Amino acid sequence: MTEKRVSDYIAQFLADKEVRHIFGIVGAGNAQTFDAITRLGFTEIICVHHEQAAVMAAIAYYRITGKVSVALLTTGGGSANGVTGVVNAWMDSMPVVVISGNENSRFTSPENRLRIWGVQGYDSPYMVGKVTKWSERLMVPEKILNVISKAYSIASEPRTGPVWIDIPMNVQGAWVNPDTLEPGVSRMPNIEVNLENRPAGVMDCKDGVSAMQKMLSPSHRPVLWLGHGIRLAGAADRVRPLVEALQIPTLVSWQACDILDSDHPFCFGRAGVYGQRAANFVLQNCDALICIGTRLAVPQVGYDLTEFARAAQIAMVDVDLEELLKHGHRIQIPIWSDAGRFIDTLLSQIKEPFSCPDWLKQCERYRQRYPVVGKEHADMQDESGISYINSYPFMQNLERYFHDDQIVVTDMGTALLAGHQVLRFKTGQRMLTSTGLGEMGFGLPGAIGAALGAGREVLCLNCDGGMMLNLQELQTIAHHNLPIKIIIFNNDGYLMIKHTQKALFAGRYSGTDRRSGVSCPDFSKLAYAFGFPSFQIRTWEEMQSVMPKVQAVQGPVICEVFTHPEQPFVPKLSLVPQKDGSIISPPLEDLSPLLPRAEMRENMLIGLHQKSSGLEIGTLD
Amino acid sequence: MTEKRVSDYIAQFLADKEVRHIFGIVGAGNAQTFDAITRLGFTEIICVHHEQAAVMAAIAYYRITGKVSVALLTTGGGSANGVTGVVNAWMDSMPVVVISGNENSRFTSPENRLRIWGVQGYDSPYMVGKVTKWSERLMVPEKILNVISKAYSIASEPRTGPVWIDIPMNVQGAWVNPDTLEPGVSRMPNIEVNLENRPAGVMDCKDGVSAMQKMLSPSHRPVLWLGHGIRLAGAADRVRPLVEALQIPTLVSWQACDILDSDHPFCFGRAGVYGQRAANFVLQNCDALICIGTRLAVPQVGYDLTEFARAAQIAMVDVDLEELLKHGHRIQIPIWSDAGRFIDTLLSQIKEPFSCPDWLKQCERYRQRYPVVGKEHADMQDESGISYINSYPFMQNLERYFHDDQIVVTDMGTALLAGHQVLRFKTGQRMLTSTGLGEMGFGLPGAIGAALGAGREVLCLNCDGGMMLNLQELQTIAHHNLPIKIIIFNNDGYLMIKHTQKALFAGRYSGTDRRSGVSCPDFSKLAYAFGFPSFQIRTWEEMQSVMPKVQAVQGPVICEVFTHPEQPFVPKLSLVPQKDGSIISPPLEDLSPLLPRAEMRENMLIGLHQKSSGLEIGTLD
Repeated sequence: MTEKRVSDYIAQFLADKEVRHIFGIVGAGNAQTFDAITRLGFTEIICVHHEQAAVMAAIAYYRITGKVSVALLTTGGGSANGVTGVVNAWMDSMPVVVISGNENSRFTSPENRLRIWGVQGYDSPYMVGKVTKWSERLMVPEKILNVISKAYSIASEPRTGPVWIDIPMNVQGAWVNPDTLEPGVSRMPNIEVNLENRPAGVMDCKDGVSAMQKMLSPSHRPVLWLGHGIRLAGAADRVRPLVEALQIPTLVSWQACDILDSDHPFCFGRAGVYGQRAANFVLQNCDALICIGTRLAVPQVGYDLTEFARAAQIAMVDVDLEELLKHGHRIQIPIWSDAGRFIDTLLSQIKEPFSCPDWLKQCERYRQRYPVVGKEHADMQDESGISYINSYPFMQNLERYFHDDQIVVTDMGTALLAGHQVLRFKTGQRMLTSTGLGEMGFGLPGAIGAALGAGREVLCLNCDGGMMLNLQELQTIAHHNLPIKIIIFNNDGYLMIKHTQKALFAGRYSGTDRRSGVSCPDFSKLAYAFGFPSFQIRTWEEMQSVMPKVQAVQGPVICEVFTHPEQPFVPKLSLVPQKDGSIISPPLEDLSPLLPRAEMRENMLIGLHQKSSGLEIGTLD
Repeated sequence: MTEKRVSDYIAQFLADKEVRHIFGIVGAGNAQTFDAITRLGFTEIICVHHEQAAVMAAIAYYRITGKVSVALLTTGGGSANGVTGVVNAWMDSMPVVVISGNENSRFTSPENRLRIWGVQGYDSPYMVGKVTKWSERLMVPEKILNVISKAYSIASEPRTGPVWIDIPMNVQGAWVNPDTLEPGVSRMPNIEVNLENRPAGVMDCKDGVSAMQKMLSPSHRPVLWLGHGIRLAGAADRVRPLVEALQIPTLVSWQACDILDSDHPFCFGRAGVYGQRAANFVLQNCDALICIGTRLAVPQVGYDLTEFARAAQIAMVDVDLEELLKHGHRIQIPIWSDAGRFIDTLLSQIKEPFSCPDWLKQCERYRQRYPVVGKEHADMQDESGISYINSYPFMQNLERYFHDDQIVVTDMGTALLAGHQVLRFKTGQRMLTSTGLGEMGFGLPGAIGAALGAGREVLCLNCDGGMMLNLQELQTIAHHNLPIKIIIFNNDGYLMIKHTQKALFAGRYSGTDRRSGVSCPDFSKLAYAFGFPSFQIRTWEEMQSVMPKVQAVQGPVICEVFTHPEQPFVPKLSLVPQKDGSIISPPLEDLSPLLPRAEMRENMLIGLHQKSSGLEIGTLD
């Protein structure tokens, strides 16, 4: 066999793994690998315009394809630019392999105490050391196959997550004799799940299934809560069998909102701080809660753990021991297991459905009584009498334009909140965003990665504020003429922070809207600059007339939706000021706008929480 | 005294330091501090549209004002986005204080092994640990004044550089009784310069001045090389007195290209890999080299240290011991000192000018013989016969439009290379860029920071590729109607990397131009979208007619200059392929396009280098 360069081994590895697209920007530090990949001709490098977008697009590419994805960065600023995407991948368990370039290896020793390693170089693996599963610098060319295959394996073993491989430019270009090449690894031993050494009380999959069934057996009001860990475990296809085998009320996390048909009779929606009212009642009244692959984050469980599902025993299945232990004794049955293995084991043991007809009827009553879009989502007028459509009913109407295999990618703000509270998904449809880091700017590169991964149209729900942080990617979309329909909710700035400033600073705005120091461009003019058609929606009539036109566009298109600059995000778990000046933080079921106390009493089978019973309603609007 | 919040102490500290502008984006993690600063009303927060731009603008703000500058970031993505700017500040010794937000302090212990600290939180001080002088999380509210004053002091003590203060959101909002407040520090002991413990051979300022003078005394061809460390030391105003006291040929580094009038009779330009020919001959023929505040980086000294100024003894003055030691014995007189103190000491001891009339005449001959713009900078045609103007003579013509107090900020590529090779500066004019990290995208936020720091017009030299990485900042410019004139050199992609691909990969382009996968938008249309007037220059006639119009615009304006997509960056130290297939890397004086050998022999007073004498010219064009 003839010698090949390190960069050729990288190119070949990507081809062997059938990686069709990777994302990056060429520079002196990765030109060698760009060349090798282009010469081999299998993998297409999608050239974005900021490296953060390369990593974010790779994240979305994984979310759609289920395959480890890759970003190829250059030295210096090129690698530093990728960091935000890496933190996203770390928090959301995304197996992304980042390959960064660096200066010549004679400069890249950690002992080099100069502020610059040669030209533009610095210690990027150290920088991402705490936000990756593995970060390593390849110094020995012969190890390339070993290192890149290890990177792949580590990224994709549970708990999945990003890895960072730094390859000095001369190492990328180094020749390697195949005889001296260290072999690749096919699968790494899982470095995280070590059941032998588990803390007392933490169960393995088998014991966990038994304990969970024991917990379930005397229950009257059980609830199943499903999270993204199931998809990460490759078990999304077993969700429906599980739900139909158990036949108990089921909730889904935001990240898993597309894992079960939203209209499935056992699916009761999404609970949390920005939860659906019905879902929160289901959650808060249950007496047995089974959480699979969802990490029970603050936005899911609220601010006081003692108030969360307070009548319930909780079983939690997670592959990350730290997640399992973080709520301490509140989790009576912590099960350290891959979600897929747990579901399979459980499925194999369920003999007949659990029977809880009254509870199911009650859950159905919640659902009927509290549709996700309600009177709190009425249109609003500004001081000059201009009326704005509300983003919540807008989302509800938007669903009508979904394809059967619709992919929706959201940015933050309105797109995130109204999107996740309202939009329903059928099997085959997908919704994705950045859930953990929740960084503004994910929308556009997320849509790019998703569109390339799926090879079909993506609906990108964005906001004026969030558009700005990856604005340059409109050009990547234009260059590839990607079928991405961008809906921009324009609410003059950062609406979530405006609400914070209303709540905490008596409405003093600072850096949140045009008058307080920040503004966004005219997105229709921007659309023109990038060669996209553009539309604007200000009324329901315009929505009706415009949306079919948006749908008819084949390539990229921008549609701006103007909403009230102060439209509330409701329902929401909010602080409630009292007449005596005190502020009460109610339990998770007691969302604002507050319901009449009598209605709350009716809904709370476990009894009204003490904090709720004394609440004065409407002391502040 | 009444209690104040931590955020109020921050606001007051900024006012006490008379900080007029800081840069940031509001979020949940810094809303408290935004509010406090806005309430106090002294400091204006310039709301950018990406946190990298906040840090980069702060860098330029420091470069212009000479005062420690500040960026105010939020939690999560908001802080991760700032990292590239921090690496820039680290490499270029910029005293920027970054204040980042984080989750509630109950989550932010380094022992927290969860991937997410609460909502969006992570260990940002760890991340920037190796690219800051100090990174710290403030956990005790009473320490706020102590920590922020310490941050200021550490940033501004030599070797200056960035610091990162992470303040959990609840700590920002915590009340502090003034009686329990820890006092601030006025000045930290310098943690870096410890002359007591200096390695053998390293001199202090006093001994260094003597040794340098001893080196100078028998010299026939001395050269002074001045760097940005002089400005960092606050000694820029003593450069001219020094040069006129010594009266020896003087070179300036790129970062210090504005520190001495380019037309000063003793100023012989800028040497290096992309050096001016005359400057490189001056450097390479000297027999005594005195480097003050310049770190002798690879782009300055070339690839082989034994060829660099090979007939010279070298004295190097640096405040960073690591820089002083990095070239080992090649630096015969390493002087560990602040550049300002060294210059003052030296000035106090110079009794009369050094006399080297023949050498000065020879240097003048180099300058006459090799003007910075020469025949290698002729206009070029493409295949279809379209003629393009060359960016080097363009720069020369551009000077004519400079104001006496012109500020020029450059991005990378053409703006950096042609800009630094050609543009001359008079006292009072400024030129700045990112020299160490050299990240694409610095231009726009750099211009924003400079325009606000100076309160006057800035000329931003940019390129199509580099514009993209902070494209969103056009809106910040628009919002504040900043007087920034943006010249965009449009060469269809990444011209520097195209040249790399020509040299290394037989001209195979990948990800460098429209045909190979990357394109940029129509910047005139973009200008329209942001409300700027725009102009285009394709010919010398258009330059003549358009530039006065560009000058006449009061607010922001974009002017696109179309250059040949393959225009060389010359002169440049290049690899030279030989007929026998070998490749020769010539010494620093032997720039390409290569001069006739006889001419080289004439110029090299120290004799032609062996590698140069055997070079075949024109085997590859």
